[in-house]
Amino acid sequence: MRYSPLLTDLYELTMLAGYLEEGMAGKPAVFDLFYRTNPFEGGYAVFAGLEPALEFLEQVRFAPEELEYLRGLGIFRPRFIEFLREFRFRGRITAPAEGTLVFANEPLLTVEGTLAEAQFVETALLTIINFQTLIATKAARVCHAADGAEVIEFGLRRAQGPDGGLSASRAACVGGVRGTSNVLAGMAYGLPVRGTHAHSWVQAFPDELTAFRAYADAFPDSTILLVDTYDTLKSGLPNTITVARELREQGHELRGIRIDSGDLAYLSREARAMLDEAGFNGVRIVASNELDEQVIESVRAEGGRVDIYGVGTKLATGSGPGGGALGGVYKLVEIAGQPKLKVTSDIAKATLPGRKRLLRALNAEGGFIQDVICLDTDDVRGGDTVHDPTNPLQHKTLPENARFTDLRRVVMEAGRRTDAAEPLADMAERCKRELALLPTGCLRFINPHRYKVSVSGQLNSLRNRLIDSLVGKGK
Amino acid sequence: MRYSPLLTDLYELTMLAGYLEEGMAGKPAVFDLFYRTNPFEGGYAVFAGLEPALEFLEQVRFAPEELEYLRGLGIFRPRFIEFLREFRFRGRITAPAEGTLVFANEPLLTVEGTLAEAQFVETALLTIINFQTLIATKAARVCHAADGAEVIEFGLRRAQGPDGGLSASRAACVGGVRGTSNVLAGMAYGLPVRGTHAHSWVQAFPDELTAFRAYADAFPDSTILLVDTYDTLKSGLPNTITVARELREQGHELRGIRIDSGDLAYLSREARAMLDEAGFNGVRIVASNELDEQVIESVRAEGGRVDIYGVGTKLATGSGPGGGALGGVYKLVEIAGQPKLKVTSDIAKATLPGRKRLLRALNAEGGFIQDVICLDTDDVRGGDTVHDPTNPLQHKTLPENARFTDLRRVVMEAGRRTDAAEPLADMAERCKRELALLPTGCLRFINPHRYKVSVSGQLNSLRNRLIDSLVGKGK
Repeated sequence: MRYSPLLTDLYELTMLAGYLEEGMAGKPAVFDLFYRTNPFEGGYAVFAGLEPALEFLEQVRFAPEELEYLRGLGIFRPRFIEFLREFRFRGRITAPAEGTLVFANEPLLTVEGTLAEAQFVETALLTIINFQTLIATKAARVCHAADGAEVIEFGLRRAQGPDGGLSASRAACVGGVRGTSNVLAGMAYGLPVRGTHAHSWVQAFPDELTAFRAYADAFPDSTILLVDTYDTLKSGLPNTITVARELREQGHELRGIRIDSGDLAYLSREARAMLDEAGFNGVRIVASNELDEQVIESVRAEGGRVDIYGVGTKLATGSGPGGGALGGVYKLVEIAGQPKLKVTSDIAKATLPGRKRLLRALNAEGGFIQDVICLDTDDVRGGDTVHDPTNPLQHKTLPENARFTDLRRVVMEAGRRTDAAEPLADMAERCKRELALLPTGCLRFINPHRYKVSVSGQLNSLRNRLIDSLVGKGK
Repeated sequence: MRYSPLLTDLYELTMLAGYLEEGMAGKPAVFDLFYRTNPFEGGYAVFAGLEPALEFLEQVRFAPEELEYLRGLGIFRPRFIEFLREFRFRGRITAPAEGTLVFANEPLLTVEGTLAEAQFVETALLTIINFQTLIATKAARVCHAADGAEVIEFGLRRAQGPDGGLSASRAACVGGVRGTSNVLAGMAYGLPVRGTHAHSWVQAFPDELTAFRAYADAFPDSTILLVDTYDTLKSGLPNTITVARELREQGHELRGIRIDSGDLAYLSREARAMLDEAGFNGVRIVASNELDEQVIESVRAEGGRVDIYGVGTKLATGSGPGGGALGGVYKLVEIAGQPKLKVTSDIAKATLPGRKRLLRALNAEGGFIQDVICLDTDDVRGGDTVHDPTNPLQHKTLPENARFTDLRRVVMEAGRRTDAAEPLADMAERCKRELALLPTGCLRFINPHRYKVSVSGQLNSLRNRLIDSLVGKGK
C-alpha cells in the first residue's frame, strides 16, 4: 500500500515552510509520541501500529502531481516546493515491539531527525499508532473477557471506512483475536478467515431445513448454521440436529451453530444441552450480536456455553468509555541538543523533556513491578527514589531487588529499518505473555488497579529546572 | 482508488458458492439497505457515500492473485473460482442523492440483480454507506450548533486509520463542514485545506514573540497564531497584537488566532475585546480542543465570540450517544418476483417486503410533512390511511393537500452509472436546503421531535399477509 505524504495536516507543511525560511529546518530535533489516559478507562494499552508506521516513513516521497497540487494552493514559495521534491525521512525511530503493554505518559515512539522531517511525520504517525493501539487494546480486553474461548472479528460492515476495517482486523489480531471475517485482511496479513451465512440465505429458500441442507451440501466439512432466523430453540436447533445426523451418515461432522439474537447465555446453555443430548458434543456454539467485553463477561457469568465469540462493531471501532479514539499526542522534547518542555496551566500536562529511556522493573519471577521513565544518560537501580510524572510531590523508592529491562529499541536508523518485519502471531504471543505478567488488578474493566509509572530523579530535576526557567518566556 | 472485491465478509463468498451449487445464483433478487435508529439519538441522518459505493460497484473484479488466495483457502470448489473470474456487478441501484435527509426504516439503497451479485456486494456497501452517513450526520449536527460560524474538520490524527481520516473529510463536507486540515482529502476531493501551527512551533523558538514574528514573516497574508502555549490572555494576545501591528505596518493583515485550551467562551470574549480595542476587528478567532455539537452549543450560549470551530476527533470518528457506527443492515426483500420478509421475535424488527418507493409529503411551502414508504406499484395520495412501520396498530391519514416527491432514482443500471458524479458542494447545498425544510424540533440534540415515517396501506397489507404465511416455515 502506498501512503501519500499528503496524509498530513496542512499545518505540518506550513510549519516546514516556516522552518525553511528561518534556516531552522536542519536543526536536530527529538519528538515523543505518547498518550495521557489509558483507553476505555482501563489499566493498560497494547502498543500496535509500528510496522505500518515504519512502512509510511520509508515511503515519504512527494509525487509530481502532489507537488503540483501544493503549488496550486498558492500559499507556498517555489523554493519550498523544490525542498519537498527531495524530501525524505532519514531519521531514527525508537519504539517498543508491537504487542508490548504500555501506559499513560510513557514515550512510545521517539522520533529523532532534522526538525523538518521529525515534525512533518507527526500526523501520519499519530493516525496510525492511535488507531492500531486503540483496537489492539480493545481486542485484548475482549479476549480477556472470553477467558480462553476463541474471539473472531466480524466488524467490517460497521468499520470506519474500508481501510478502517482492514487495519482494525490487523490490530485486533495483535491483541489476541484469532481470525476475521474480512477476506482482504486475511489476504493482506495472513490471518485466518471465518464465516457462517446470513439470514438472507435462509430466506432465499422455501424453509429453514431446506436452507440448512443446501448449506451443508455445499460445505460438508465446515458448516456453521445460523439458527435464529425463525426461532432458535423451536426451529433452528431441531433443524440443525436433523442436518447434523444427515451429515454424519455421509461421513461428515457439522462444525457449529451461530446464535445472533436473544439471551445468549440462556440460548447457548439450552442449545448445548440439545446438541449433547442428540450426540453432537463436538458441534461448537458461536455467539454474535453487539458483543463487547462487558457483554461477554456477563454471558460467561450466567453460565453461557459459548465456544466462539464473533465480535463486530464495538471491536472494529474501539467503542467504549473514552473510546473511539486514543488521544495520542506528539511533542517536541529536544531541539539542537537543548531539552524542551511544554507547560500548560495544568502541571499534570507538562511534558517530559529530553531524550529518554523507558524501563520496566521486574521481580524475580519476571512479573511487572512498575515502569520508570528516565533520561538517556541515567543509571536507574533498585533503591532509587522515583517520582510521579503528574504529581511532583509524590515519590517512592524502587525495590532493591528489581531487575530493569529497556522496553524500546532503535527500529529505524537513517530512515531504514534495522530489522525485518515481525509476524503478527509473534506480536500476539508477546501481548498474551505480558498480560500474564501484569498485576491482575490492572485487567479489571471497572476501576482497574493503576499500574505505577514513575520518572527518575534526574528527569524530575530536569523538568523542574526547565519549568523554572520558562517563567516569562511567553512575554 | 481501487477497492478490492475481497473487501467483504467471508460468508458472502461461501453463500455465493452455495447459491451456485444450488443453481440459484442467477435468480433475480432485491435487497434494501436501511438502518433502524437515527444516529446520535438524533432526529435525522444525512445520506452519504453513494459516489464511493458506485465506484466500488463498477470495480468489482477479482484479480488473479485474489483468486489464487481464495483457491488456497481450500474451502471452495474450482468451478466457483472460475465463476468468480468472470464475476461483475451488472445490477441496478436506486438511491437518494447524497445530502438528502433520511430516517430510520427507510430503504436507502435498493440493489436489484442476480442473487449472486446483489448478495455479494452487501459488506462493502454497508461499510461505505454506514460510515459516510454517520459522519455527514455528525457534521450537520456540529454545523447546526455553530449556527453559521464556519466549521473546519481537524480529525485526521485521531481518525480510524488513514482512509478513515480521508473518507471522514469527504463525508464531513457533505454535512456542511467548509474545509479540512487533511491535505490528501483536499487534493482527492477538491476541499479547501486549512491550518495554523502547532505548539511545537512556539517551543522551537527562544520565546513566543520570536515564534509569532517568524510565522507571520513566512505567511504574511494567511497567518493564524496559536495563542495558548504559555498563557492566552497574558502572553498570547499581547504578542499577537504586537505582531498584528508589525504586519499592518508592512501592508498585511493578521488573519486570526487559535485558542486550543481553557474556557473557550470566556477566552474568546476577552480575546475579541482585546483585539477590537487594539483596532483588529478583522482578526478571526478559531477555537479547537475536543469540540462537538454540545460543546459548541454551550460556548455560544455563554456568549463566546468564535468565528471558526476546528472540530477533530469527535467529528472524524462520529462519537456521541449511540455513535461510532451507524447500524445499517442489508436485507433480502424479494427473490424471483416473490416478496420476502425477515421476522424476528420483535415485530418492530420485521423487514418491509417487496420493491418499494420512498416518498416525501410536502406542504404548500415545500416543508417536509412526513415520509411514506410504499410498494413500487402503489399510488399514494393525500387522504390515504398510512401505518407506522414498527407498530402495526398505529395509523393516520395523510393531509389532503400534500404533494409527494419520490426521494430516490435509479443511479446505476446494468452495472453502469446513469449520471456523472455530483460535486460535493452540491450535496452540501442539498443538505443545507433540506435541513431548513425539516420541522425544527427534529434538529434538537436532546429528545428531538420524531419525524413521521409511515408505510402505505398496500405495503402494510402485504407485510401482514407474509407474516401470516410464514408461521411454520421454521419447522
